Amino acid sequence: MSSCTPRREDRFAFGLWTIMNRGADPFGGPTREPIDPLEVIVELGRRGVWGIEMHVEDLIPVGSSAAERDRLIREARRRLEDHGMACVNVGANVFSHPVFRDGALTSHDAKVRALAMQRYMVAIDVGVELGCRLCDLWWGRDGCESDAARSPLEAFKRLREGLNYLQHYIERRGYAGYRLAIEPKPNEPRGDSYLPTVGHALGLIAMLDRPENCGLVPELAHARMAGLNACHEVALALDAGKLFGLHLNAQKPLRFDQDLRFGAEDLKESFFVVRLIEDAGWTGPRTFDAHPYRTADRQEVWDFVEGCMRSYLILREKVARFNADAEIQGLLRELHEPDVGPLPDPDELRGMVFDWDELARRRLHHERLDQLTQELLLGVR
Amino acid sequence: MSSCTPRREDRFAFGLWTIMNRGADPFGGPTREPIDPLEVIVELGRRGVWGIEMHVEDLIPVGSSAAERDRLIREARRRLEDHGMACVNVGANVFSHPVFRDGALTSHDAKVRALAMQRYMVAIDVGVELGCRLCDLWWGRDGCESDAARSPLEAFKRLREGLNYLQHYIERRGYAGYRLAIEPKPNEPRGDSYLPTVGHALGLIAMLDRPENCGLVPELAHARMAGLNACHEVALALDAGKLFGLHLNAQKPLRFDQDLRFGAEDLKESFFVVRLIEDAGWTGPRTFDAHPYRTADRQEVWDFVEGCMRSYLILREKVARFNADAEIQGLLRELHEPDVGPLPDPDELRGMVFDWDELARRRLHHERLDQLTQELLLGVR
Amino acid sequence: MSSCTPRREDRFAFGLWTIMNRGADPFGGPTREPIDPLEVIVELGRRGVWGIEMHVEDLIPVGSSAAERDRLIREARRRLEDHGMACVNVGANVFSHPVFRDGALTSHDAKVRALAMQRYMVAIDVGVELGCRLCDLWWGRDGCESDAARSPLEAFKRLREGLNYLQHYIERRGYAGYRLAIEPKPNEPRGDSYLPTVGHALGLIAMLDRPENCGLVPELAHARMAGLNACHEVALALDAGKLFGLHLNAQKPLRFDQDLRFGAEDLKESFFVVRLIEDAGWTGPRTFDAHPYRTADRQEVWDFVEGCMRSYLILREKVARFNADAEIQGLLRELHEPDVGPLPDPDELRGMVFDWDELARRRLHHERLDQLTQELLLGVR
Amino acid sequence: MSSCTPRREDRFAFGLWTIMNRGADPFGGPTREPIDPLEVIVELGRRGVWGIEMHVEDLIPVGSSAAERDRLIREARRRLEDHGMACVNVGANVFSHPVFRDGALTSHDAKVRALAMQRYMVAIDVGVELGCRLCDLWWGRDGCESDAARSPLEAFKRLREGLNYLQHYIERRGYAGYRLAIEPKPNEPRGDSYLPTVGHALGLIAMLDRPENCGLVPELAHARMAGLNACHEVALALDAGKLFGLHLNAQKPLRFDQDLRFGAEDLKESFFVVRLIEDAGWTGPRTFDAHPYRTADRQEVWDFVEGCMRSYLILREKVARFNADAEIQGLLRELHEPDVGPLPDPDELRGMVFDWDELARRRLHHERLDQLTQELLLGVR
Repeated sequence: MSSCTPRREDRFAFGLWTIMNRGADPFGGPTREPIDPLEVIVELGRRGVWGIEMHVEDLIPVGSSAAERDRLIREARRRLEDHGMACVNVGANVFSHPVFRDGALTSHDAKVRALAMQRYMVAIDVGVELGCRLCDLWWGRDGCESDAARSPLEAFKRLREGLNYLQHYIERRGYAGYRLAIEPKPNEPRGDSYLPTVGHALGLIAMLDRPENCGLVPELAHARMAGLNACHEVALALDAGKLFGLHLNAQKPLRFDQDLRFGAEDLKESFFVVRLIEDAGWTGPRTFDAHPYRTADRQEVWDFVEGCMRSYLILREKVARFNADAEIQGLLRELHEPDVGPLPDPDELRGMVFDWDELARRRLHHERLDQLTQELLLGVR
Repeated sequence: MSSCTPRREDRFAFGLWTIMNRGADPFGGPTREPIDPLEVIVELGRRGVWGIEMHVEDLIPVGSSAAERDRLIREARRRLEDHGMACVNVGANVFSHPVFRDGALTSHDAKVRALAMQRYMVAIDVGVELGCRLCDLWWGRDGCESDAARSPLEAFKRLREGLNYLQHYIERRGYAGYRLAIEPKPNEPRGDSYLPTVGHALGLIAMLDRPENCGLVPELAHARMAGLNACHEVALALDAGKLFGLHLNAQKPLRFDQDLRFGAEDLKESFFVVRLIEDAGWTGPRTFDAHPYRTADRQEVWDFVEGCMRSYLILREKVARFNADAEIQGLLRELHEPDVGPLPDPDELRGMVFDWDELARRRLHHERLDQLTQELLLGVR
Repeated sequence: MSSCTPRREDRFAFGLWTIMNRGADPFGGPTREPIDPLEVIVELGRRGVWGIEMHVEDLIPVGSSAAERDRLIREARRRLEDHGMACVNVGANVFSHPVFRDGALTSHDAKVRALAMQRYMVAIDVGVELGCRLCDLWWGRDGCESDAARSPLEAFKRLREGLNYLQHYIERRGYAGYRLAIEPKPNEPRGDSYLPTVGHALGLIAMLDRPENCGLVPELAHARMAGLNACHEVALALDAGKLFGLHLNAQKPLRFDQDLRFGAEDLKESFFVVRLIEDAGWTGPRTFDAHPYRTADRQEVWDFVEGCMRSYLILREKVARFNADAEIQGLLRELHEPDVGPLPDPDELRGMVFDWDELARRRLHHERLDQLTQELLLGVR
Repeated sequence: MSSCTPRREDRFAFGLWTIMNRGADPFGGPTREPIDPLEVIVELGRRGVWGIEMHVEDLIPVGSSAAERDRLIREARRRLEDHGMACVNVGANVFSHPVFRDGALTSHDAKVRALAMQRYMVAIDVGVELGCRLCDLWWGRDGCESDAARSPLEAFKRLREGLNYLQHYIERRGYAGYRLAIEPKPNEPRGDSYLPTVGHALGLIAMLDRPENCGLVPELAHARMAGLNACHEVALALDAGKLFGLHLNAQKPLRFDQDLRFGAEDLKESFFVVRLIEDAGWTGPRTFDAHPYRTADRQEVWDFVEGCMRSYLILREKVARFNADAEIQGLLRELHEPDVGPLPDPDELRGMVFDWDELARRRLHHERLDQLTQELLLGVR
């Protein structure tokens, strides 16, 4: 497949943290040496990657001097320019330090909440300098193991306050076009996270002061950790005009956060996600937020990087085939035939008589359509 | 516990279908004789139940004559009045007949969608005659096993069209104060349902023509089928002003729909749900939507009914104890001490310096709080 | 793919119940007309299917006269012979009738247990007449929603008694070579089933009087309902010499029993299952135990049947490619290089010094191997 | 409740690692200072704890000199003696170091397997010196994310080889009465672990050279991570005479490994576990294998320790009440009434006629029994 070589116009992106991940987990320490974030940018650029995402701390450690900060930003910007790359999201790490152990935006401690705000403001400032336009919030610790200590109502109120505050900051600074996004996750590291899914985030966004400026960055693995259909998750965000970003990866459903290479699990669902955004002409970055297996060494990280992009490109080609497949498209046309006309006026509808049994006789072809899809994916049609 | 006898002011309600459930499942037929819906009302009334919910088909079989329809409504109303009861929700069964096998509101067939609308209109008309003010939509079949045959974007569009249409009908008929609600469920009978959780429904509602008139009826078991924290689900609906109803029951997480007796599983989460709505002064009906075990005979159905209500009353008394427990409340006060003042002005916050380690040293007492909660539930404090 | 036409030597089998399934579920009645079991045999035979499985009740309704019983057996046998087919399992339905609502083998009622035994004896007798050699027990109702009413210790004891009794019956009747098997399932229709997985069944079998005569019929969907790796489940049975049968289908993990068409979900795991049994030279029947979507009409049932077999054949061809792929096999050889020699004598091992870090440096290629596997499945290598 | 103070005869034990846990997780570093294992023993002893478990590395860091090793053993033994305590299990950490990143007993590298064996031999030697009689194996890394790199058949073979080797070692050294145990877990840190449940371990044990010497240490949270009934898991091990130990804790089902305080989740299932082992007169240690919330500071760890034991004692008292409750016991007697006599002789049973409907009419009281159980747990009866 000649089309399997990534190009800038494919708009692939990686979180810096995915490459910087060292393989540690709750049961063992790192298996990979550290890698410099600036080197990561270069290495990604060499492989046809177009964009990066970061936590501001990935690039600029907490406690760096102003000079060091400026230097790091300058160096990052230069490398991005050298490779025709872009920075598409700068978030903040408000989950690692013990100060955030009971939440960042939802902590009972007003000072902790202020500190979290400050970190996001830092992230936005750095984002502006890097030409970025998005601050994606994954708060991580805003959740609980027991509802005894905090009412979820308090939590939702504080999440709104935090998002409104950041929006206010963006406006105050005149960062035109800068936007916020929520990245929902059902659990881990907390027993239950507040706003576990795309839906919950949409529900909260509707209650913000400026809902139009806050969207979503759904992550496939997070949807699967909740046992949900990842394609439906992305579709709801897209439908609401809220798909500000997208984190592609893979995950066995309903277990610990695996963050597997895109394409490593559930080819069918991955295919439908690709089909959804390609057919919709969605132009956002195709960001991979995953990490190599702990068994991978530093070199194999690049196998992982290439695998993510190859899988996307293969599935994108499958989408073209699906859309061109005469039998599949014929069945879909047949299914849509009775989708005619608007609903009748209610007064008219009240008196209408339907032949239930006749309507129930229409053939739906679902077994066949699904089988054809799988055979297309398997490359035998 | 003297308080364990249900009274009208406790506002307990049951779905007629819960009592009419005959114990059939995919692997076996009914174990209980049918029971007349009018008799159900009387029997519930005798046990201190205040409200009922129904699918209009529970009371009025499809195909009933106009005279039979009117008689059934009259008989139902008389029984409700006799016992000081109310009807709090009339929905429609748009999931049992094969005509709806690929969805009601989201069917590709415009006639099937019209038929579903008609059923909801019938439900609303009957609801008005019964003094009800809510039509709760659980669509059941609007979902899929494979996304090959229908784009989720088509589905969301049709769901909005359907809800807008019903809203239009309510206004056209002048049914002042009549409202719609969505009852989300993650899966079963379909592989994946559209709008699987409270969050997703809130997201869709925000896109309706008249979002203020459509709310939610969360069901605890549905939240647990998605592995979510049921208390957070109810809280998000409450916070959004969208808690139009509530279906109480129990469920082992992440398996088939069990619809167990309220209180039968997860006492702690059930307690937090009761605490949430009691402390919030929520005045809606406490509706039980569950069904007795298939092992139960017709007589044991009333054990089930009484068990649901007793569990609620016991947990409500636990809430009062929790709120009066000096040690628990002392810890909660201590936790809230640092929750002082609004966030500083962004310009000021930018320059503030925080002592991260000192902030991280505050004791949080979560182990103790959770243990005290469990001991309170166990009746040993 | 020329090899996609099923032949007898592929040893495909279907449960009669899978074709006879009429599409009913807890939320709606049948969508398909009944079909005669004898017709099912013929239709399967026409499509290259080699074997059938049945509950004895699928063929011979409870209450049939002796003459009717004999006629049905004769007719079935004739059709099997006409098409060169075999009956590979006759079980009993001890889960549908209310008498079994709290279990068959584990009921507290000794008469119910005796009745269940009788049904299995009937199944074995009929199996003998049909030339079958296996009675697979899926008990369905032997489980609980609450452990209050029965100790699991009572349940395990009764399961052993039941299996020992059937074994005794087989010997008493002189049914040489007739064997028993357990088909485990984690839940549904009961909240928790006794012996939820292959492992648990193996544990119980080890405690039987004649463990060598009782094996397993693992079902892929049942493993996935427990969130387990279905390939590992089958492998453990195979490794123990207990793979007496195999039920192939598909399922989204950790939700209600979907019984989807084989190949409809999780191509990778399905591939590894096929690879396991093909590489092991396992000669048992490849039985499909699934049912068409409820949306399928009677005609589409045959789409379903053909889809199951096609998916198997496609995956079997992928196995051959995997085993012939030079890069994949090269990596596997490299991985196995250090797998040399037996463990040293303990006395020697006690004093050995290992260079942990050097041992940790070996490259494992897992990302690459998994990516190659997926690309092979996708048909692009 | 006076009985809530732990005493030695309650046989409570803790893993040293549970107290030494510092609160790190994949998303953040430690929140608690280190604590010396010798101090842990003393602090546990002061709180009425009777036993400890450990990984040998918890007490003796890898690379310690022989003298340091001997000193640490001596110091540990002295503290145990001072407090009348016992060491009940010494395992080995074969999961943290990168050398084990693709498994210990199942690594493709024979040297890695030998190293793992050596670590277990060290653990057994130290165990002998501490008066312990059990080596519990939780291998952690023996599993996979993809089955491409290793056949599960290879894995099972190596697990057997490893267990047989250790058994051989025990015999060679003449460690009379020393036993092995498997602690199964479904996943995490690997995508899928080999031997995910009690059942699977029992299946493998039956294939060992000396099955009588290898048993199980089930962990409640591990059962719940697989969505299984934890009481059934423990019961199957008990029934097989394989309950060599027991790890008590809590967990929300089907998500990351939470290792919550015993009693923190699912009071009913916890109650049934306590009832099972108390009623069976099981005399093994009641070991808590959990860790405090990451939000807990060093002092709150002792809240956690006390909470675990208090919950057990409260539930044990509930068991006594359950067994003495006249209504509950009356219902159980009624349920057991028809449990009379052995199964009839098969020849007799063949001809027996049952009145299915009459047998189906027996009342089962499950709703009432479960409700009474919950009310007993809630302390209102």
